Amino acid sequence: MTIKIGVIGTGAIGADHARRITNTLVGAEVIALTDVNLDSAHKVKSDLGLNAEIYPDGHDLIARSGVDAVLVTCWGAAHEEFVVAAIKAGKYVFCEKPLATTAQGCRNIVEAEMASGKRLVQVGFMRPYDSGYKMLKDTIDSGAIGEPLMIHAAHRNASVPEQYISPMAIHDTLIHELDVFRWLLDDDYVSAQVVFPRKTKYAHSKVADPQIVMLETKKGTRIDVEVFVNCQYGYDIQCSVVGEEGIANLPEPQAIVMRKNANLGQQLLTDWKDRFIDAYDVELQDFIDGVTNQNLTGPNSWSGLAAAVSADACVKAQESGQIEAIELPDTPDFYR
Amino acid sequence: MTIKIGVIGTGAIGADHARRITNTLVGAEVIALTDVNLDSAHKVKSDLGLNAEIYPDGHDLIARSGVDAVLVTCWGAAHEEFVVAAIKAGKYVFCEKPLATTAQGCRNIVEAEMASGKRLVQVGFMRPYDSGYKMLKDTIDSGAIGEPLMIHAAHRNASVPEQYISPMAIHDTLIHELDVFRWLLDDDYVSAQVVFPRKTKYAHSKVADPQIVMLETKKGTRIDVEVFVNCQYGYDIQCSVVGEEGIANLPEPQAIVMRKNANLGQQLLTDWKDRFIDAYDVELQDFIDGVTNQNLTGPNSWSGLAAAVSADACVKAQESGQIEAIELPDTPDFYR
Amino acid sequence: MTIKIGVIGTGAIGADHARRITNTLVGAEVIALTDVNLDSAHKVKSDLGLNAEIYPDGHDLIARSGVDAVLVTCWGAAHEEFVVAAIKAGKYVFCEKPLATTAQGCRNIVEAEMASGKRLVQVGFMRPYDSGYKMLKDTIDSGAIGEPLMIHAAHRNASVPEQYISPMAIHDTLIHELDVFRWLLDDDYVSAQVVFPRKTKYAHSKVADPQIVMLETKKGTRIDVEVFVNCQYGYDIQCSVVGEEGIANLPEPQAIVMRKNANLGQQLLTDWKDRFIDAYDVELQDFIDGVTNQNLTGPNSWSGLAAAVSADACVKAQESGQIEAIELPDTPDFYR
Amino acid sequence: MTIKIGVIGTGAIGADHARRITNTLVGAEVIALTDVNLDSAHKVKSDLGLNAEIYPDGHDLIARSGVDAVLVTCWGAAHEEFVVAAIKAGKYVFCEKPLATTAQGCRNIVEAEMASGKRLVQVGFMRPYDSGYKMLKDTIDSGAIGEPLMIHAAHRNASVPEQYISPMAIHDTLIHELDVFRWLLDDDYVSAQVVFPRKTKYAHSKVADPQIVMLETKKGTRIDVEVFVNCQYGYDIQCSVVGEEGIANLPEPQAIVMRKNANLGQQLLTDWKDRFIDAYDVELQDFIDGVTNQNLTGPNSWSGLAAAVSADACVKAQESGQIEAIELPDTPDFYR
Repeated sequence: MTIKIGVIGTGAIGADHARRITNTLVGAEVIALTDVNLDSAHKVKSDLGLNAEIYPDGHDLIARSGVDAVLVTCWGAAHEEFVVAAIKAGKYVFCEKPLATTAQGCRNIVEAEMASGKRLVQVGFMRPYDSGYKMLKDTIDSGAIGEPLMIHAAHRNASVPEQYISPMAIHDTLIHELDVFRWLLDDDYVSAQVVFPRKTKYAHSKVADPQIVMLETKKGTRIDVEVFVNCQYGYDIQCSVVGEEGIANLPEPQAIVMRKNANLGQQLLTDWKDRFIDAYDVELQDFIDGVTNQNLTGPNSWSGLAAAVSADACVKAQESGQIEAIELPDTPDFYR
Repeated sequence: MTIKIGVIGTGAIGADHARRITNTLVGAEVIALTDVNLDSAHKVKSDLGLNAEIYPDGHDLIARSGVDAVLVTCWGAAHEEFVVAAIKAGKYVFCEKPLATTAQGCRNIVEAEMASGKRLVQVGFMRPYDSGYKMLKDTIDSGAIGEPLMIHAAHRNASVPEQYISPMAIHDTLIHELDVFRWLLDDDYVSAQVVFPRKTKYAHSKVADPQIVMLETKKGTRIDVEVFVNCQYGYDIQCSVVGEEGIANLPEPQAIVMRKNANLGQQLLTDWKDRFIDAYDVELQDFIDGVTNQNLTGPNSWSGLAAAVSADACVKAQESGQIEAIELPDTPDFYR
Repeated sequence: MTIKIGVIGTGAIGADHARRITNTLVGAEVIALTDVNLDSAHKVKSDLGLNAEIYPDGHDLIARSGVDAVLVTCWGAAHEEFVVAAIKAGKYVFCEKPLATTAQGCRNIVEAEMASGKRLVQVGFMRPYDSGYKMLKDTIDSGAIGEPLMIHAAHRNASVPEQYISPMAIHDTLIHELDVFRWLLDDDYVSAQVVFPRKTKYAHSKVADPQIVMLETKKGTRIDVEVFVNCQYGYDIQCSVVGEEGIANLPEPQAIVMRKNANLGQQLLTDWKDRFIDAYDVELQDFIDGVTNQNLTGPNSWSGLAAAVSADACVKAQESGQIEAIELPDTPDFYR
Repeated sequence: MTIKIGVIGTGAIGADHARRITNTLVGAEVIALTDVNLDSAHKVKSDLGLNAEIYPDGHDLIARSGVDAVLVTCWGAAHEEFVVAAIKAGKYVFCEKPLATTAQGCRNIVEAEMASGKRLVQVGFMRPYDSGYKMLKDTIDSGAIGEPLMIHAAHRNASVPEQYISPMAIHDTLIHELDVFRWLLDDDYVSAQVVFPRKTKYAHSKVADPQIVMLETKKGTRIDVEVFVNCQYGYDIQCSVVGEEGIANLPEPQAIVMRKNANLGQQLLTDWKDRFIDAYDVELQDFIDGVTNQNLTGPNSWSGLAAAVSADACVKAQESGQIEAIELPDTPDFYR
């Protein structure tokens, strides 16, 4: 069985997912495309040699009977509208993050999905599909380090452009950690605090950089995440889980260890796109397999909502300098 | 375009490749199967839900007009016969190692292929498709360590069964190194020497274990490979390339670094099947892509011949205790 | 010239320092001993074969004209009294930590020393004498990582006995970090906050374990220290300094990397005494050299005071759950 | 008790040892000096502020009644003469390597020492005093890796000057490995073979570089040592011992792990003098302690002889291209 997929939004990420489905993944085919810029949709169609129809609008595409599943990869502000429409049409939908630009938007999606009686939505958080994070999750779940008590983490970029401002450290950067720690720990956050170390001279004026975000979970696990987006030296994702009986670290990306020029070392990545490149393939294949099996198992709408609510609290904590509560109902059985 | 594949030999490796083509890879489909045990072919067909025909014999399968490419995964002694038959039928063929059980058999295949005027054969050496070896090759080719002068390598298994005897250290174990170093260095061997360290108490009586194989290449690069198949501690493949300006090491397999029980460490593999598991997918996808593009680029018949000739010299060196010449003509342009 | 040393307090640490001076270090000799338990002083004298006099009391010992320098290694409550007495006698004094059991006691010592017009006191903080910390300090001072912005640190013990209660996490454990970070960063603290992660099941009832202590410095550097004294796996001191241009880590203690039992790893220490054992020698040799050259350069009374004031604020922060100010005047020129 | 030491040869190494004895080590004092260049002896005396007499000749110095022990640090060709003279005078002697410039010279020393009935000689092989090699020896002796079967080693220098010719790869470079492996393995060599990889373009015309020396021991252990003295990247000593149950590696020198400029790495040494600098202190302190206790335990004359005999065989193997026997009687009980 080949899943027939429609893509709403053929910008960089939409085009990339279409390419992935066409050339790399198995079990699916892109048969419908749309974009606010229809030329872009036509270009993707011809670049990939797709046997696909171009639709003037996402709603038309969703309505098409042959479409089994929809990719929502348009700009964030339109996510909610198309995800809800897909749910109402009873179609599976893979939505790039953010699920919606507001927590309320996420709630609307959750409600629509629960009302539909069926899990239809996967959110584009790719870290749970990274081989390193999977090993880390397996290690925790195996009990090898005992109960997790703390996570020390870092999310570092070599540099960011001038338009990157302080709240983006949460919404664009930390958002991945907010999702992945819930999954790693099988836990929810109860509070957030943000402190601002001395600012690096390499940061533009509108971003406090670095920042340290401290989270507490329901089970009492404490997480500190250094967000440092002008660290100069590379793109670097660190995650160390301290348990009652040991500590497990996220592996470094595979690299050649070299002895050269009085250095014993290995290259670090500098471009974030290289870090999780394999995870995108695994993520979308998992969505295709989930649709094929009528059983989505990846990050769901509730994960999207939890990330949104947590991010809002972190931004509030950035502004207040206080410990801010993160209030989220228990995960409904529907999403377990 | 979907490549139609026939599988000759549906034992463990044949069944695994059929599964791979069906569930994981793109662009190909298994439409024909045969095995000396026809029940086995039927079982693979039904297990994978294939829309495939079962043939009484490899020659019938090769003859079928719809088959674009053949997988030769039967027992080694029959490889030559079916590979030559596929070549004569003008069909692409992926042959598991060994290409043939004798150097002469390999020569016969090379001759048939050259006579056909077209590169049709890929041999199942998977290490060039391993992400670590690819990084190592890229590092060497980039000139980062200057001209390679030496390789220090090791091939270690936790243990081997009683039927594993000394020559198998060459034919079954070192064979992978014999292929991969030629590729890494873009060079050929001129001689081999084997020395026998003190034997481990864990080795059975009919195998000298460990062994050290020393190779010299045309360019003068010296290679030493420790073959140690009862090393107890794990399955471990080491490769360190010493160049004029630096040293590059094959990466360790990705693993969680853990602090536990007064140890800072990471788990080593114990089963060889886990070490190159991803490489098998990449290898066979590359064959499918090569058939699709009518341009095979993986390990070819000449590689198979070179491995066979080199292995014979190594076995001779095991027996003689002398430095034995490895005589191989220059690679024909046909195979460059 | 041989420095003549008197030792006040011949318990474990005093006896060890006497041994060190006698057998390992150069330029000094123990000629006087005292202890509340005079038998203990006699035992040290005879064990080491010292040509030393036993005094009934520290004040008698200090008064002896031949004594050039005094080691105060009696119990903490008596430190202030003997250090002040030594200062008043114009004699050099090496005082084991704590310099005094209260910040006020430290202030009294500072005042006495400044009144004497001469730097006479070295406090027994040994980490600045550890080869790893020295490399880290050199790296920071070289500018290799740019200005330090953050420190992520950990102080972990395998386990602690039942009498170890929460404030000891500050006074006995964190105290070393409180001293060494001031030295590493050449900076002072302005505030402390303590948070309590989920408690490990291995901790006794009267200690919150682990704890995370967060410090801010005058220059704005943020420090987080995980204090985890029942971590089970070993004795482990971690310190990672994040600068504007790179990150430098305290080296792991030297160890054999071993491949064994499916593990690639190295042994971790389990006993804190092994971790800084070399640093004790270097520390006391530096004191002897400082006395010889009439120029002490090690941790001074002001360091002792700073540690005491900072520790008090951390304990207050443990209790309040709030961010507590650390108020310390600028370091007087006398101590620069 | 303070050991009174006379130094024969006040060049770089002699002056350095005199400084060491005077400023760093305990239990000894330099009271006599001589050198073919008497000005050099006077300079060392005044630089170190020694209360020492200058003698016109080594024999006069040895004859002086107050001298307990002699350091022979003059040029190699004179070692034998002064070591034998010291033995005949019944005085302890620390002789820098080589013990003598010929195997026969070493034999003469061994005979003189055995005739004296007392172990009086320590040879300046410092690697057994290196903390890393000591850990490696302890690991082997603990049985943690089982019986040693192989050693893979390397001795690499960044570059050597034009006067460094091929045999020096043995006499000046490999000589340290020849001594340290005997000690590590508690074994003797029976044969040597040398092969010459492709020559690096960075080597001068009169040195084959790199070289690989292969040794076999009485117990059958096989050792390969890469000697690469123009490796460009640093000074690097590698030693990996493969045992029946695991592998143990010589630790890397302590270094700061840094993340900087897209590199995760640590600095390598470039100057050989930095690599074993601590070992020189420990070595000479051990000699002083041995003299004090009338019981030398360091590298002895037999070690010096064994190194000389082995080195001669390696040079012969360089020239012949053959496997050359290393013939050495069993270690006499006198030297066990």
